[in-house]
Parts: sequence; structure tokens; C-alpha cells
Amino acid sequence: MSAAPAAAGDAFADWADAVRDRVESALDRALPAADIVPQRLHAAMRYAVLGGGKRVRPLLAFAAGEAVTAPGPAVEAVACAVELIHAYSLVHDDLPCMDDDDLRRGKPTVHIAWDEATAMLVGDSLQSLAFGLVSAPRLGIEPAAQVAIVHQLALASGSRGMAGGQAIDLDSVGVELSVPQLEHMHIHKTGALIRAAVSMATACAGEVGTPVAAALDRYAMAVGLAFQVVDDILDAEASTEALGKTAGKDQAANKPTYVSILGIRPARELAAELHARAITALDTVPGSSRRLRELAGALLARGS
Amino acid sequence: MSAAPAAAGDAFADWADAVRDRVESALDRALPAADIVPQRLHAAMRYAVLGGGKRVRPLLAFAAGEAVTAPGPAVEAVACAVELIHAYSLVHDDLPCMDDDDLRRGKPTVHIAWDEATAMLVGDSLQSLAFGLVSAPRLGIEPAAQVAIVHQLALASGSRGMAGGQAIDLDSVGVELSVPQLEHMHIHKTGALIRAAVSMATACAGEVGTPVAAALDRYAMAVGLAFQVVDDILDAEASTEALGKTAGKDQAANKPTYVSILGIRPARELAAELHARAITALDTVPGSSRRLRELAGALLARGS
Repeated sequence: MSAAPAAAGDAFADWADAVRDRVESALDRALPAADIVPQRLHAAMRYAVLGGGKRVRPLLAFAAGEAVTAPGPAVEAVACAVELIHAYSLVHDDLPCMDDDDLRRGKPTVHIAWDEATAMLVGDSLQSLAFGLVSAPRLGIEPAAQVAIVHQLALASGSRGMAGGQAIDLDSVGVELSVPQLEHMHIHKTGALIRAAVSMATACAGEVGTPVAAALDRYAMAVGLAFQVVDDILDAEASTEALGKTAGKDQAANKPTYVSILGIRPARELAAELHARAITALDTVPGSSRRLRELAGALLARGS
Repeated sequence: MSAAPAAAGDAFADWADAVRDRVESALDRALPAADIVPQRLHAAMRYAVLGGGKRVRPLLAFAAGEAVTAPGPAVEAVACAVELIHAYSLVHDDLPCMDDDDLRRGKPTVHIAWDEATAMLVGDSLQSLAFGLVSAPRLGIEPAAQVAIVHQLALASGSRGMAGGQAIDLDSVGVELSVPQLEHMHIHKTGALIRAAVSMATACAGEVGTPVAAALDRYAMAVGLAFQVVDDILDAEASTEALGKTAGKDQAANKPTYVSILGIRPARELAAELHARAITALDTVPGSSRRLRELAGALLARGS
């Protein structure tokens, strides 16, 4: 998961870098150029999306797509769409009425670099663009599968998915949560989109409602939660400089985290358990689940 | 277009009331119940959408659907989706960083009745829900047509459609615009969604890229602009009480309007000319364009 150049022979890092390059270039093509009216909006949209981010969701989409041998153009569209939804949620999340963050990936947030109104329209427009990508012509998949993919993205993004998780998050500031309640929040807030990255890529190969789709969904659920647990560990431990965002922010805002509820060592154990659960889910996947396996490992390694 | 009970024998008003009832009940079913987690968000989403509004876009969708004999469930989905996008845009537009409005349809706006963060998530979630509706299974149309409909909605909502129009609007506060520049803004801000209401309903009957689709699109473009001209006339003339929103707001904000640029009489003449253009476009539509004709008439009558 490191963004550093791959060491010679490190096949996973090479693969991940190649996916990131492909996604960056696809996003660059999908986003309107900054000289197209309204220029300010388009420049801000590009700023919010390009040139940063770990691209975890696109990596998951490409790894899942490889496992089910899904067509490349469709997986690329799905990977970019899920990243655009993620990017929009960050832009809105950073606004003063939400988390009020000035810094993201080491750069001023969109409402700081532009203004609040523009940041809101950036988020709104990135969401529309995401749906534009998954409904684009010539993705090389059956229209019925494409409709199913759009529907999955809509459910994962909305009030019973990511946006709903943010609402639960808002409602839980200063509230003492149990681990199941915290899990409920994260299953929505970050889990829904991570699951969608995998399930939409799986659907690109026509796998909808099949045992393979179910197994990959179990993988995605475990990875999604592990990702959040590791994030909480990083947030508690890392310095602002290393993270590129304000560290210890959740604690300062009195937001419940896995570390604040469980303590750091049990949080690490939970992450390891979720990792094992993700790997076990791959046992019944007939295709090459190598990248999914490596990705889960790299994800866990972030926080140790 | 009156929300008053239909007079006996007034077939158009009866039809419009029936469409509004059908849309209200479909939106009620589509919106998550207020007792589903996150309850606050779902209650606020319902508040933003239900029990108000002229439902101009759904009326256009149903009238266009009638002209091309499109299947009911698909037209209903399209009508609700376009209304959800419209509703989300109002919620975000009313926020302090945009128009800062406290009153909408005679009721406190969402960020007043709840809070800014909730209002933002309401808008975000309504957008997702709109895409969920047009990608739902069992709409009774070809999957390829459904994919095209989703794509039309995405383009109409995003930075090269409605959200882009709002960005152009922001950029033009205090700026002297020409009529073509004002038209350019409205073609995006309100026109894109009105055209989408018609073109998506048309696509429900498989009419995509056909002469009939082109004729109905010319109708929708003219109606969309007429609608905005009439809105500007109403805004300049009506009292706050009658409108249910703060009147004269555009003038107070130093926003250019057709009335401020042209004066009231030429604005009325422009509305009449656009009305005539809309009616002429219907000449080549073989199906029953009666409701489209009546709707254009009712729309114009609002401002006279």
C-alpha cells in the first residue's frame, strides 16, 4: 500500500502502482478540463480528486476484477466511480458544518483553497460524475449488469450506506458507544463503499447474487472493518506530518474510536482477526485471489 | 399548475392533481421511513421532499411519457428521480454558504429545522436515492434504455448541468450579464433538469436519438427557459406571503434576472415567445401531446 516506488521484484507494489497510474489517468480523462465553463468548479473538482490518495477502493475493485476475470473498461469505470464518491464525501466531510478540517493529504481542503459554496458544488458534482461513469456506453458488459452496478453504487452511497454512516457518526459525537454500535457506524460510513468497490467489480463479470459474489462480499466486509480499525490506530499514534491530516482529531472531537473503546493492543488484535476472516473468505473463490490476499495484508501492515 | 382543487370539468387540473398524488405517494414509498436508522436524516429527507412543491418536473415527465406511450412504472421512477434531484438542489441552495434562505414553500428550510450538517447529508442522500430509483429492477423497460436514462440524469445533474449552472450563478453575483449569458446560466441551472425530465420519460419508450426525442427536447428547452423567465417575473412582483419564499431576493442579492436586464414587459414578451416555440416543437410529435401543450400554457399563465 506504500506510495513509495516499488522495490525490484516486489510484484504487488508494482501492480498497485500500475493500478494507481491507470486510475489517475482515467480520472484525469473523466473530469472536465479546468478551462471548460464553469472553470472554477472544474478546477476545484480536479484538485479534490487528482494527485493524491491511497486509492484503496480502486485497488480493491481491480483486485476483485482480476479474481473474476471482469472486462478492463468496466472495472476501470467502477474503480473511478467509487473513488469519486469517496472524494466527494471527503470534500463535504471537511466543511465547517461537518469536521471543519483545513488540511487533507497535506494540502488545504477544497473550501479553504476555494470557498464553501464551491466545495459543496464540487461534492455534488463528483457524485453525479460517478453515476455518469458507471452508466457510460461501451463498457463491454451486459446492460442488465450495468443497471445492477448503478443500483449498488446508489445504495452504497446513500442514507442506508455511506451518507447514513456519516449521519450516525454526527449523532454519536460525545456518546459512549459499544463495539457493536461502533461497528454499525463503520459498516455504513466506510464499509458500504468498500463493499461496493468489490461487488461492482464482481458484477462486471456477471457475478450478481452468486456464491462467488457472496464470498467476495464477506472478504470486503472484513477488509472494510479492518481498514477502519487500522485507521483508528494510525490516528491515535501517528503525527500530523506523517498522516498529512490533523492527527488525534477524532479524540479531540470526542468521537468514539476502536482505540478509545478497546485500547491499542485489543484494537491491533481485532485488526488481525478481521484480516484472517478476509483471507478465509477467499478460500471458495475459484479465480486468482492473489491480489485480494496481498491487498488485505498490505492494508493491515499500515497500522503495525 | 394551480395547487387548488380542480374545478368541475377542468380536465387538465384533474390530470395534474392525479399526477401529483401519484408522485407524492411514490416518493413516500421511495424515501426510507423516519423510524429507520439514521432516523434524523430520514426524517429530514422526508421533510425536504414530501408535502409541497409544484412538481413541475414530474408533470413534464408524465406529460412526455403520455406523448410517447411509455410504461407507467418507468415514467414514475423518472418523475420521482428528477424531483429528488430538484429537492436536493433546493436544500443545498438554501444553506448559508449559498443563498442563505430560512424559508422554503412557507416552511423553515432544512438547515433551520435541523442543522447544516444534516441538510448537507440530506441533499447528498437525495441525490443517491434519485439514482437508486432510475436503476431499480422491474421498471418494465429494456436495460439498455435504463442505462441511457441513468446517464442522462447524471449529465443533467452534474457540473455540465444543474450543479454547473449553480456555479455559474455564484460567479455572476454582482456581474452585469447579457441576455445570452443569463440564458447560458439558466440552460444549465434549471433547464438541464427540465430537459432531463422530458428526455428520460421519452427514453422510457425507447426513444433515444430519434426525431421524436429531438422534437420533445426542443419543447423542453423552450419550456425550461420560459419557466425561468416567469420565475423572475414572479420574484419581482409577488409578495413574500404569496410565494412562500422571500420575494425580491434575487434583486436584493444583486443577482441578474430577466426582469432586471430586460424590464418587465419585454420579459413577458420573451415568455410568450418561448411558449410559442415550445408549442411549435410539438407539431412533429405523432402521439398525444395534449398534456404537454396544456402544461406549457399553465406554466406561462403563472406569471401573467
